Amino acid sequence: MTELLSDTGRETMLAPLFEAGWKMVEGRDAITKTYEFANFVEAFGFMTRAALWAEKWDHHPEWFNVYKTVEVTLSTHDVGGLSSLDAKLARKMDQLAG
Amino acid sequence: MTELLSDTGRETMLAPLFEAGWKMVEGRDAITKTYEFANFVEAFGFMTRAALWAEKWDHHPEWFNVYKTVEVTLSTHDVGGLSSLDAKLARKMDQLAG
Repeated sequence: MTELLSDTGRETMLAPLFEAGWKMVEGRDAITKTYEFANFVEAFGFMTRAALWAEKWDHHPEWFNVYKTVEVTLSTHDVGGLSSLDAKLARKMDQLAG
Repeated sequence: MTELLSDTGRETMLAPLFEAGWKMVEGRDAITKTYEFANFVEAFGFMTRAALWAEKWDHHPEWFNVYKTVEVTLSTHDVGGLSSLDAKLARKMDQLAG
């Protein structure tokens, strides 16, 4: 079952993400990161790879793209905030963008 | 050369887009439309098709996706407003989403 991250879960799972450039969204239990790529093909290529994982895990990002920039926000709507699924997708996205 | 739409160009090219659900963006010379699909696969499938045309025409959208919704904004940064490229991409997107 998906559930809100506990205090311990937050320390364990979110701390490494914050070090990797993720930030809390102001006024929302969600994390965000802005990726910059070399061009649109690289940016959309990243989105395509991430989309396949998102669909596979049935956990989808909110994301905004303009040219070579992709701004991602992750939160778990079913539980009204951050769950381990967000941490998992965030790690995967960092890997795919890397 | 890409240039700002003239008054005549606006009447000719934008009127049919407004009828198709496009709207002017408040405070910006740009048009926007929100597409709703059946699910994420359909929404991202649309984005992928549109991305290929955008890259081919070297004219890229600003777009936001969350699950089955895709919010598109079109404007031509090089000319600081709407050009015929925006109308062309808008028509293509409507066709791809249809």
